[in-house]
Amino acid sequence: MSEKEAEELLLELKEKAELMVDLAYSSVIYDNKDLAKEVYELENLVDLLNEELQKLAIKDAKAGELEVNEALAIIQLGSCSEAIADAARDIADVELRDVELHPIIKESIMESDEILVKVKVSEESVLDGKKLGDIQLASHTGMWIIAIKRGKKWIYGVDKNTIIKAGDILFAKGAREGMEHFVALAEGREKEI
Amino acid sequence: MSEKEAEELLLELKEKAELMVDLAYSSVIYDNKDLAKEVYELENLVDLLNEELQKLAIKDAKAGELEVNEALAIIQLGSCSEAIADAARDIADVELRDVELHPIIKESIMESDEILVKVKVSEESVLDGKKLGDIQLASHTGMWIIAIKRGKKWIYGVDKNTIIKAGDILFAKGAREGMEHFVALAEGREKEI
Repeated sequence: MSEKEAEELLLELKEKAELMVDLAYSSVIYDNKDLAKEVYELENLVDLLNEELQKLAIKDAKAGELEVNEALAIIQLGSCSEAIADAARDIADVELRDVELHPIIKESIMESDEILVKVKVSEESVLDGKKLGDIQLASHTGMWIIAIKRGKKWIYGVDKNTIIKAGDILFAKGAREGMEHFVALAEGREKEI
Repeated sequence: MSEKEAEELLLELKEKAELMVDLAYSSVIYDNKDLAKEVYELENLVDLLNEELQKLAIKDAKAGELEVNEALAIIQLGSCSEAIADAARDIADVELRDVELHPIIKESIMESDEILVKVKVSEESVLDGKKLGDIQLASHTGMWIIAIKRGKKWIYGVDKNTIIKAGDILFAKGAREGMEHFVALAEGREKEI
């Protein structure tokens, strides 16, 4: 039975779609075309993942490994992630069409409870050289990193093995109340994580 | 000029749509029809907000207060939030159609980097009687509350004035690494926020 695969595909779809929404809003707020282009790349990936998931669900149903209802639920959840991914692409499209959003609109998006910040890691930052899995940044600041710009390179989908370096530009997401501590750590103004 | 209103509407739309996605997945994972029904309620609200936003954007353009491109960008961002809200409703629909998801699929959704937890606040919890604005739960645990079930009542859209009470069932969202501390605080096993 290929259930494990369906499960993995569905999780990957969900995570990619939600990352895309965050990256898309970041692209609009920080007027960043690289982020917007990454959203387009991810949208192609999501389409492929969803196609694979739908085939798998039907194959498993045919083989008697899933009930008809279970297969339908999987297909519906996959389609919902794809719809969210499509919406994210349309948000990124606002950035790519070279429309400069009115500053007041940008500010309002940044006033969400869940906010998106961009900060450069200074030479003095305690984060320099730290592995994400070792410092539990998210549980100490309520913010987590969605993308890193290192020189000309972009790192998307960071994980516990990702090492932060001085000079990195971090794009992070999280609770408004944690932003100040997070930014102070990155800028080297606070030393205790 | 009614720009301030457009800005507020867009923010409310964005927040409601993203809350709906979290509530919808929570409804599926925790097999909870109340949460799923709330998603439907919110979807009606989002439709109204978006209609109002679109009218306002065109009105402002007509009055010369917005460039054509700016008005279009606002309309597009509003439509994207509505599309995300629709996807959330379709996720909630999986729960409302009485389809029990395969346990392996539920587990996989819970393995996201961003997770959804449900926990009951015990009599011994330090959270009992605390106002959210005073304890900065999100920046200390990386988790924030999306809904509270208090007796038969539901509280959605908590804010800094919301007071947590023993007996509350908290639905929260956040970084996986903060979950354990959050749950231990709610269950009274850890006392230091």
